[in-house]
Amino acid sequence: MERTFSQAIGQVKTSAVRDILKLTQSSDVLSFAGGLPAEDAFPVEPIRAAYDRVLARGANMLQYGVTEGVLLLREWLAEFLRGKRIETSADRLLLTTGSQQGIDLIFRVMLDPGDRVLVERPTYLAALQALTLSRAEAVEVDSDEAGMRLDDLEAKLTRYRPKIVYVTPTFSNPAGKLWSLERRKGLVELARKHGALLIEDDPYGDIRFDEKLQVTSLYELDAACEGGDGSTGNVLHLGSFSKTVSPALRTGFAAGPGDVIRTMAKAKQASDLHSSSIDQMALFELMTGWDWRTHQRRISTMYRERMEGLTSLWKGTPWEELRWNQPMGGMFVWVMLPENMVASELLKIAVQEGVAFVPGDVFYAGEPARNAMRINFTHTPPTLVPEATARLARALQRYPQ
Amino acid sequence: MERTFSQAIGQVKTSAVRDILKLTQSSDVLSFAGGLPAEDAFPVEPIRAAYDRVLARGANMLQYGVTEGVLLLREWLAEFLRGKRIETSADRLLLTTGSQQGIDLIFRVMLDPGDRVLVERPTYLAALQALTLSRAEAVEVDSDEAGMRLDDLEAKLTRYRPKIVYVTPTFSNPAGKLWSLERRKGLVELARKHGALLIEDDPYGDIRFDEKLQVTSLYELDAACEGGDGSTGNVLHLGSFSKTVSPALRTGFAAGPGDVIRTMAKAKQASDLHSSSIDQMALFELMTGWDWRTHQRRISTMYRERMEGLTSLWKGTPWEELRWNQPMGGMFVWVMLPENMVASELLKIAVQEGVAFVPGDVFYAGEPARNAMRINFTHTPPTLVPEATARLARALQRYPQ
Repeated sequence: MERTFSQAIGQVKTSAVRDILKLTQSSDVLSFAGGLPAEDAFPVEPIRAAYDRVLARGANMLQYGVTEGVLLLREWLAEFLRGKRIETSADRLLLTTGSQQGIDLIFRVMLDPGDRVLVERPTYLAALQALTLSRAEAVEVDSDEAGMRLDDLEAKLTRYRPKIVYVTPTFSNPAGKLWSLERRKGLVELARKHGALLIEDDPYGDIRFDEKLQVTSLYELDAACEGGDGSTGNVLHLGSFSKTVSPALRTGFAAGPGDVIRTMAKAKQASDLHSSSIDQMALFELMTGWDWRTHQRRISTMYRERMEGLTSLWKGTPWEELRWNQPMGGMFVWVMLPENMVASELLKIAVQEGVAFVPGDVFYAGEPARNAMRINFTHTPPTLVPEATARLARALQRYPQ
Repeated sequence: MERTFSQAIGQVKTSAVRDILKLTQSSDVLSFAGGLPAEDAFPVEPIRAAYDRVLARGANMLQYGVTEGVLLLREWLAEFLRGKRIETSADRLLLTTGSQQGIDLIFRVMLDPGDRVLVERPTYLAALQALTLSRAEAVEVDSDEAGMRLDDLEAKLTRYRPKIVYVTPTFSNPAGKLWSLERRKGLVELARKHGALLIEDDPYGDIRFDEKLQVTSLYELDAACEGGDGSTGNVLHLGSFSKTVSPALRTGFAAGPGDVIRTMAKAKQASDLHSSSIDQMALFELMTGWDWRTHQRRISTMYRERMEGLTSLWKGTPWEELRWNQPMGGMFVWVMLPENMVASELLKIAVQEGVAFVPGDVFYAGEPARNAMRINFTHTPPTLVPEATARLARALQRYPQ
């Protein structure tokens, strides 16, 4: 049968990341491409015990649940977030299938066809995909190491009157960036002034390489603006346990103003009724029955060591031509190749050499930088990093001058 | 903050079903309202053992998975469906968060704003909600006990040129209806002739009160039309293990033509990356490690007995004024009140008496029948059914003449 799909899905680019992931899963390619946590960071036994405790609670664990998600987990989560100075409550939290679903739902409930959304340059690929699926248009704001440039942000808020500004201010994907406090404050104020809802996507914030590093969330800054408990706030904070516990549980959350959360729940009801309540209960049993802080410290240390181990090999030829900043958390290093190199061309040579990364051009809503690459440092086992790095060096040297 | 949500979400009616569910969860109301399986039908211990086996497989169970869903489960599922004469393969299956997500995804990838979808009269409420969220419009086809009336179907296919016809031909929600073979064949042929994709939503097909009853799926009939393996077919078959194993696992599936499944996977990637792979693996471990047929027989018998037990009480005053057909499977009886009664008004009295049901008007895309009510017979424990029935009888008698 000949079939005409919707215009929206026709415009969604499939994720090069996931296509490459598929390729590398079935070959000898060493991969810096995926955004995968390390498997040896997963607390397998505690999770196994958690599921066991959930099912021991009996048959009502297996019944339909409410769209908002398991109440016990939302109550625990409100306390957990309070510890991060995010003041919320169970009824202003929505549990989602990963934080990705939070992105998709907020776009679906806010955006009409042709609406504009301001995003960083570069930004998270799958947010761009969800945005396209909502028939909206992404507009890039000039960004540097400290975040969006506030002059360009204000100009574009005025010009495009966007309903939403979407950012990943803490250890971003792909750029591994940490926004400065000044830019955070400026963004929060400008978003309020121009009536744009601010989406703070924060899946990486708990992977912090310096324990003493203080990060102030947009949610907290916004709550200070209105002097309250966030109930009339202007920030939707999206989080996830995929990077710090396990992605397979697919448990993320949205914390935000009551009206936004209720409206997202309405959309979620139509899209999947609710996410797995067994997984939510298991996360509740896990988090209330072990030492999360120790686990968080362990994986942060593990990932910092992996990042340092990897970048310490990037010395001498051909690495001196490349530029990068060591990230202070998260899972990615963003590497700029010489201006004349095209990362997607380099990838073809790299795959021949047996190593993969993600070319940076897929992370731009506007004119892409073609000479950037995203390197994941969490997943490749340290024993394989020297070989993977040597392969990448050979690819760089083989790149036609 | 004043906020403007999208036009689409503004038009989605919240589910009266779920609002009532919330009400009845926190009170002494006995409820025939929800579409809940019986908790004593859940195989708690086999599920507990299944999760245990999954986690014993090690840390890779906890990693990100592919958007299409766990391959082992898709391979098993292809065999399982073959047993129901649904010829498919792992790469033409998409695992979803309940079959609800399958409905939402197919609408998102097929429909542009203003597109028409043909539906039964009455039809599944949450399909109407998903359709509204996709900015499409539902058009009802005249329907009777045997399914859509083919003359009206053909007239509306010609007039509205819909991209999709959505039906629940086997033990439907809300009407508990089983389509005749003749209507099934007619629908399959007309949908092909007019180039409309046929969505066969089938969450209840495995709850069959007469084991010998042969039901031929639209998928099978369509495959016969093209004489092949379904790869170029015109039917998307949606299924679920929510009613027969447990809703909490949220594991449904879509079986259909390759291009449709691939496009749905693209949309799913943007909406949640993938559904819980732990739950999918647990379902795989469960289904390959126990006697499914015995379980299916057990719950079908249990639900038949509950349906018979309930309807056997509907004798004498005031029941003689009501009309219903005993369903041959599924979870619902559809009851017509006298013409002058309004079910939503009756519900108010019923809740005062301590019993709930779903007024039928919410299940219509067009002009509703106001004197219908949907009665669920699976969830109320048999010991409470006489009391719940007595309360409903009192409400009927109290209804103002």
